[in-house]
Amino acid sequence: MEKAFDVLVIGGGMAGLSAGLWCSDLGLSCAVCEARAVGGQLGWIHNPIRNYPGLEAADGREFREKILRQARSAHFELIEAEAEGIDCEAMRVSCSDGTSYAGKALILAMGVRRRELGVEGEREFRGKGILESGSGEREKVKGKDVVVVGGGDAAAENALILSRLAKRVTLVHRRERLTARSEFVEEIRKLGNIELLLGAQVRTFVGSDWLESVEVVRGDSVASVEAQYAVVRIGVAPNSELVAGQVETDASGYVVVDAFCGTSLPGVFAAGDVANPVAPTLVTAGGMGATAAKATLQRVKSGQRI
Amino acid sequence: MEKAFDVLVIGGGMAGLSAGLWCSDLGLSCAVCEARAVGGQLGWIHNPIRNYPGLEAADGREFREKILRQARSAHFELIEAEAEGIDCEAMRVSCSDGTSYAGKALILAMGVRRRELGVEGEREFRGKGILESGSGEREKVKGKDVVVVGGGDAAAENALILSRLAKRVTLVHRRERLTARSEFVEEIRKLGNIELLLGAQVRTFVGSDWLESVEVVRGDSVASVEAQYAVVRIGVAPNSELVAGQVETDASGYVVVDAFCGTSLPGVFAAGDVANPVAPTLVTAGGMGATAAKATLQRVKSGQRI
Repeated sequence: MEKAFDVLVIGGGMAGLSAGLWCSDLGLSCAVCEARAVGGQLGWIHNPIRNYPGLEAADGREFREKILRQARSAHFELIEAEAEGIDCEAMRVSCSDGTSYAGKALILAMGVRRRELGVEGEREFRGKGILESGSGEREKVKGKDVVVVGGGDAAAENALILSRLAKRVTLVHRRERLTARSEFVEEIRKLGNIELLLGAQVRTFVGSDWLESVEVVRGDSVASVEAQYAVVRIGVAPNSELVAGQVETDASGYVVVDAFCGTSLPGVFAAGDVANPVAPTLVTAGGMGATAAKATLQRVKSGQRI
Repeated sequence: MEKAFDVLVIGGGMAGLSAGLWCSDLGLSCAVCEARAVGGQLGWIHNPIRNYPGLEAADGREFREKILRQARSAHFELIEAEAEGIDCEAMRVSCSDGTSYAGKALILAMGVRRRELGVEGEREFRGKGILESGSGEREKVKGKDVVVVGGGDAAAENALILSRLAKRVTLVHRRERLTARSEFVEEIRKLGNIELLLGAQVRTFVGSDWLESVEVVRGDSVASVEAQYAVVRIGVAPNSELVAGQVETDASGYVVVDAFCGTSLPGVFAAGDVANPVAPTLVTAGGMGATAAKATLQRVKSGQRI
């Protein structure tokens, strides 16, 4: 089966939803494909949102509700299916619902995913000690030993949040210095129950039914750090695999765009974190979604690649 | 007198306020210079705002209140003075308050202004028949004759809004076709009291104390259109004069930026409408403000031009 729209948006996070709202506003027919959670990374935010201009929310869920309410009164189709193939040249997306979608323009808004360490036990102990979210599941670590892996803002913030309830937090980072913002680093150094293991790499998550310890390599030595819980925050990677080789990407896989969200291929636009390693913020994703929608308008009106 | 900040933002509209909020969030000291109305074009919006993801507002004023509330709890200085000189190379801004401000990075967020026709009577009858805002002052035109000048969305929308109360609206446009979105054009054609004068240009606004008529040239003939009110909506022009020749601008004067708001000069960024002829939307301006703030961070941290 095939369905045709003016604009196909791949990804229903902040950028994709904004693109959908704007296509609706501009009178363009539009489908937004999202296989997992609509709202994307909003589902990861368990803290108050205070840096989105004009709107404050208790957490990502509350924020998502507001956008979804708007989306329901807008005119775009939300397709709950996974994009399995994207043909940028033909402007065609094949989805896990067995349908092929055709567009006059594409907006790539697939976002990013958390990077994995790729070590033994990492997948095995997911949900069995390895937490999806430190702040969202903070109650669980009460009185326990926790390992946090990473050295940036997200790792530092998780270490700080979990240290309030955990018996002890060990922050394992492969470099000799944390790259997190200085307030976080200062606070970490002040606290008595956060231990830093720098220049160290996780080798294995160890346990039987549940996580029991984390094996860490540091120089020539291997240490076993007791931990019933762990959080891995070593950055994100762009979900650009389906368009690799079709549009230009940078060395890290981010889709390269110009100031108006145009990719290297006319008629194909990209918005949000998949195309923005510099400012992965909610408002930037929303703004890029609007820009991409505006940019498609000219193309759709003229019937030409722009 | 001189004051120094990490980041100087020129312009306190949506982009500048977002940049200020984000600099605050990132721990950068920041000053935002705004001579006129904080919130910029938000002051022009007299209709409900429904296309800003996550937030709906009855008008621009309500929206502005929400942002200003956030701004008050953020840490950036709002300087109510006009930037009179900008030295992009030296990163210095001289303001009408007699103070010179120095930064380690600049964010240009001067926005756009409405274009003028540049014809006789246009300034003389401002406030004396020539309205600043059609929708904001709609009550005034009850039973009157109105001329709206322009052919894009803004002109068409004003014509539609004013036609509800006015006796008659004449829409004067220099081209032979309106460029406004098709719904607007269809609605205009359906209404009995909107007359189209296409391929026509305003020559003079005529009156004694108050606007009485508008002289319109069409081919070889001149017509006098009776009107007690007029609205001019012929597009916008970027407020980039103070940086002309210092950073690259396009043929229309818009500051040219890359995907991360960088201009042609390292350390100088631009955000919002002054750098975005494609998508002059609130959320795009907000997003660009956040991106520019994020991009300055690396520069300020390293002390280098980036």
